[in-house]
Amino acid sequence: MPSPPPDWVKALKPSGPQGSELLQQERAQSNVDVERLSELLHTKENLERRASLLALLQPEKVFDKSQNHTLGRVERLQRSLAKAKRLQQLAEEHKWSMQELHAANDLIGEPTPYGLHASMFLVTLREQGTPEQHKLFLERAEKYEIIGCYAQTELGHGSNVRGLETTATWNSNDKTFTINSPTLTASKWWIGSLGRTANHAVVMAQLFIDGKNYGPHPFVVQVRDLETHLPLDNVYVGDIGPKFGYNTMDNGFLLFNNVKVPHVNMLARFCQVDKETNQYAKPAMPSLVFGTMTWVRANIVLDAGGVLARGVTIATRYCAVRRQFQDRDADPHAGETQVLNYKMVQVRLLPLLASMYALHFTGRGMMRLYDENQSRMKAASSPDQESRGAGPEQLRAGANLLADLHATSCGLKALASTTAGEGLEICRRACGGHGYSSYSGIGPAYADYLPTLTWEGDNYMLTQQVARYLLKSARAVLAGKPARNDTSQILQAYLDRRDKGASFDVLDEDKDIVAAFGWRTAHLTFEALKHRDAEQRSWNSLLVDFWRLSTAHSQYLMVKNFYEAVSSPELSGALDPETKGLMHQLFRLFSLHTLEREAAEFFSSGAVTVRQITLTRTTAVLKLLDDIRPHAVRLVDAWAIPDWHLDSSLGRYDGKVYEDLFRRASEENPVNDLVFDPYPWNSALLKNEPAKSKL
Amino acid sequence: MPSPPPDWVKALKPSGPQGSELLQQERAQSNVDVERLSELLHTKENLERRASLLALLQPEKVFDKSQNHTLGRVERLQRSLAKAKRLQQLAEEHKWSMQELHAANDLIGEPTPYGLHASMFLVTLREQGTPEQHKLFLERAEKYEIIGCYAQTELGHGSNVRGLETTATWNSNDKTFTINSPTLTASKWWIGSLGRTANHAVVMAQLFIDGKNYGPHPFVVQVRDLETHLPLDNVYVGDIGPKFGYNTMDNGFLLFNNVKVPHVNMLARFCQVDKETNQYAKPAMPSLVFGTMTWVRANIVLDAGGVLARGVTIATRYCAVRRQFQDRDADPHAGETQVLNYKMVQVRLLPLLASMYALHFTGRGMMRLYDENQSRMKAASSPDQESRGAGPEQLRAGANLLADLHATSCGLKALASTTAGEGLEICRRACGGHGYSSYSGIGPAYADYLPTLTWEGDNYMLTQQVARYLLKSARAVLAGKPARNDTSQILQAYLDRRDKGASFDVLDEDKDIVAAFGWRTAHLTFEALKHRDAEQRSWNSLLVDFWRLSTAHSQYLMVKNFYEAVSSPELSGALDPETKGLMHQLFRLFSLHTLEREAAEFFSSGAVTVRQITLTRTTAVLKLLDDIRPHAVRLVDAWAIPDWHLDSSLGRYDGKVYEDLFRRASEENPVNDLVFDPYPWNSALLKNEPAKSKL
Repeated sequence: MPSPPPDWVKALKPSGPQGSELLQQERAQSNVDVERLSELLHTKENLERRASLLALLQPEKVFDKSQNHTLGRVERLQRSLAKAKRLQQLAEEHKWSMQELHAANDLIGEPTPYGLHASMFLVTLREQGTPEQHKLFLERAEKYEIIGCYAQTELGHGSNVRGLETTATWNSNDKTFTINSPTLTASKWWIGSLGRTANHAVVMAQLFIDGKNYGPHPFVVQVRDLETHLPLDNVYVGDIGPKFGYNTMDNGFLLFNNVKVPHVNMLARFCQVDKETNQYAKPAMPSLVFGTMTWVRANIVLDAGGVLARGVTIATRYCAVRRQFQDRDADPHAGETQVLNYKMVQVRLLPLLASMYALHFTGRGMMRLYDENQSRMKAASSPDQESRGAGPEQLRAGANLLADLHATSCGLKALASTTAGEGLEICRRACGGHGYSSYSGIGPAYADYLPTLTWEGDNYMLTQQVARYLLKSARAVLAGKPARNDTSQILQAYLDRRDKGASFDVLDEDKDIVAAFGWRTAHLTFEALKHRDAEQRSWNSLLVDFWRLSTAHSQYLMVKNFYEAVSSPELSGALDPETKGLMHQLFRLFSLHTLEREAAEFFSSGAVTVRQITLTRTTAVLKLLDDIRPHAVRLVDAWAIPDWHLDSSLGRYDGKVYEDLFRRASEENPVNDLVFDPYPWNSALLKNEPAKSKL
Repeated sequence: MPSPPPDWVKALKPSGPQGSELLQQERAQSNVDVERLSELLHTKENLERRASLLALLQPEKVFDKSQNHTLGRVERLQRSLAKAKRLQQLAEEHKWSMQELHAANDLIGEPTPYGLHASMFLVTLREQGTPEQHKLFLERAEKYEIIGCYAQTELGHGSNVRGLETTATWNSNDKTFTINSPTLTASKWWIGSLGRTANHAVVMAQLFIDGKNYGPHPFVVQVRDLETHLPLDNVYVGDIGPKFGYNTMDNGFLLFNNVKVPHVNMLARFCQVDKETNQYAKPAMPSLVFGTMTWVRANIVLDAGGVLARGVTIATRYCAVRRQFQDRDADPHAGETQVLNYKMVQVRLLPLLASMYALHFTGRGMMRLYDENQSRMKAASSPDQESRGAGPEQLRAGANLLADLHATSCGLKALASTTAGEGLEICRRACGGHGYSSYSGIGPAYADYLPTLTWEGDNYMLTQQVARYLLKSARAVLAGKPARNDTSQILQAYLDRRDKGASFDVLDEDKDIVAAFGWRTAHLTFEALKHRDAEQRSWNSLLVDFWRLSTAHSQYLMVKNFYEAVSSPELSGALDPETKGLMHQLFRLFSLHTLEREAAEFFSSGAVTVRQITLTRTTAVLKLLDDIRPHAVRLVDAWAIPDWHLDSSLGRYDGKVYEDLFRRASEENPVNDLVFDPYPWNSALLKNEPAKSKL
């Protein structure tokens, strides 16, 4: 590392007012009770857990973050494996729960090569393995005696599981399966933790018995030697190369040349090949599995709020510290204005501040519904269910609601991850030039987050599923057989009032905002239904309409969840009236800003008038920006993201932005060890000697 | 590098149909004359020049691109300097023009540490130096005897030049200037080529004479020793650290502790301090300088087309090769569908295809106007101007048009760079999972391009200038004193017809599309004027309206330029009727897709009816997508970007996507040299030995 700056440099301070003073002013001008709001968002227990993890991790040298943006991929991957190992050692030493390991991994701020072992490999073995297979694979995997991954995606096939080319052929003679890659495009690809780390894989392959294809099934296959760590014979495996982000993960490829595995290696809890009869058998799926996808998606929605909060925290604090130009109407002798005071900055940042709360409450709402339903189902399957009051009627009602959420949750996953991904980039640009520095902390987070827009279902593909469900629901409503759930209610409400027209008072009534969003969904649904059923238009020609429909419905669900959260007794009990009022303002900003951006649909559906939209834009949204502005810093403080987690010069809690940018550039930047001979005729081209005496 | 794959892997092919066959089919189904279209876009001369440069550069090992995405920043920077030096050697050897050097730099595909020397340093010395200073600095700089940069931006001050803190104080006693950095925020920051390379800088500093501040002026200051390459005394200089992209450039910081430079080091063509009287003197700006900014912005607009073309070429070819799912309405026995056939993909990619043509023709149009005006001005200042027919009247008219373009060009810069930057990300996502691989070639181009959205004026800040000009023009029109230019014409046309209303036939008449865009600009201008002048609203409260206004007007200018280009005799003469027809379709797609996205403004301005917007969306745009789809591959082929320049597995001209992804991952990826011991209890944590025998 370069030598520290000379004394005359050390004596320099940023010109005043200092960032620390400006953030103090920001915090002094608002009464938001940061601590209570933090506890409402994260619970006291989680906050305390994170604090103690932070105290444990931050001092360890192996978790140092200072070179993350400078090193090449080989070194980054090596260091990340070291971090993963150390985390696992700490987890054993301190007997961490899965939640604690997850929280610790979140704090160190990068995916590691253990990522897919600790998640999909263990989960798949647990959920799809028999007790015999648990003993054989799961127990060893949990002790890290074998390290695994989940190998589904192939070079030529992403989202379409039915198109997978890898085969698993049942050999009735020796009771084995032959795993094979018949083409180059059959190569497994993008498989996390496989590139260099895993010695086992759960491989999804087309099961063939006696020439007949039974579709994709999961097989446990060893791919590397447990001692030498080299690939086994007839296995070709490696890392797929550098990526836009996620470079601390060894995403891998994998090809098989007719590799045999024993009968027990097909995960057999739900489907098996009978060893004796050579017949395929598929027992019914147990009802508890139903809803897992909903739970995964609820987590993506909740995480999206947290990811966005990271960008908004950085940008809001920095825009309160950064001053640029004078307000044109201000006293010419006044100093430069805090960037956060400009309406063009507020209109980009504050709706994202509202969005991160909206995503959080929506994710929480989805989880609550899921949990309630799970316990209802459990109660129903226990012998004394009658006495607990969970009758079959209630049970059906709960299942109905969950089925509704399940069908619509893919739209929410798409909207949430797109909002967070694109929101981070908006935050980065709102930081001006310094946003482009890796020390901003936003770019790296953005690059690592982007895959979420593609995995667990590509965001564009997913919207078709929501549309299909909405069309089906609309047909049922028209046939007079509506399901008992929220979707059917908004469709029915629209039909009932369509002729009378809507007259939602979105500017004054919060409930009417929710209703207007529901109206728009219903309008777009019946429009799409007309195109498909009456006009017989092709599915392909309607994909754009379906995408708009899914987005509209997902926005409705967020608005509804946000509204329910801010109106809940839980929130009223937890917060003082002023902070509670601000939560309502955030709800209104999120909703009205969305309404204004999608004005054409709200207008053409008749949900609101052009006059209302104009007033929303020119008056209501601007007023909300004014009202929320003084509280912006405290509202991001409440998210309570530790500085070490943010890893951002711009977003520091103490506002010492310029000092930290300068410190990192001059003290943590290995480029400053180089001495360049800059002349083109020098045939040696490069000199590369450390210059310790002078920077 | 890892050992090559075993024979059984080498024998594998992608499953059919092959990418090469699919691209052949694509090219067979269209008659677009790729060669003639290429020549129209780039000129035959430029295409030939690029071909010979490519033949020269590609074989040289120093320009190898295979490790670009894998190396750490130190090595990337070292290699990039080596590339820059080699380019300079070749430039001298082959006596390249500036254009040729620029084209060669473009082909190697990364910014180099010579970047700011070769552009801003030389340009500033040339334009702002006196003949004496040319001899002293420029001649040596042109011979690379001194290497320089342009140091304007500071740690605490980006866009606002008047806020710069670095001072240059005139010492009348010894006829020198003292350059000083009074605070930490005065540190120069983001200065390209300064971090490790430059030994000189043009430093923008506040000029103080006798205690009075005369504003920012340029000073040549030596910062490093010409032999040892170490910083001079009282100069603290270094690299600012890793960035989201642009990591092959050494953006630097720079602080001065009262460093003295002689009188001759203040660039004095336009302003000087008189050595004898110690007085400040500022001669009038010569009129030829007027318009330079317009020329810079025209280049940004033109480049934006080229940058976007890179992404669109990659995504279009890959979406023609990639097949995923079946069309829901298709024969169930049909194979998977080319992704490019899905409307949801077409609606994202084809409007961008149209945009890259729109940007290109707009940039060309701006340059033509600039060039015409420059020659008119030259003719006017030559003694025989009367005989050439360039009378004062015509001269004023030309200057008027250029003044109009000058004022509105900042809006075009903002719209063009935003379109290209965001368009690249849309292209990346349209490539699905593989878009995230660095081998897609899109991510790296995106990351390197993003600064363009911030430099030469932050895109959001710039929009205020356009709005200010439009308000001023509107006031002049209302006062009955319109300037003679296009902006005044659309404002006047709106006033003349406002009461009668517009009835633009956007679905059938191309000219009416242009008029509808002009109408919208005029409507938004008079709305904003009402808010500012009649309602006396604050400038800050109108910033969002101004941004919308600037965007609207810039879209109008693009639509207008695109329309003029496709209607021009030049284009008719160069292209066969079918290709010419396609250019018209692209114009319509660009315009109508924009109109539909901004529907609320078009509707509320009365430019079109709701019915027209609905038809645009549900019929016209879908029809255009159908019409353009078969020609998509040839339309990107015409852009003629060489494979070596694209550096993309997905965008290869021959369609061998999967073979190339696999080749790079298995043969060019140093991660596959590593052997990991994956167990957490291994206290050595890491093994790192090459495994040549097996991958």
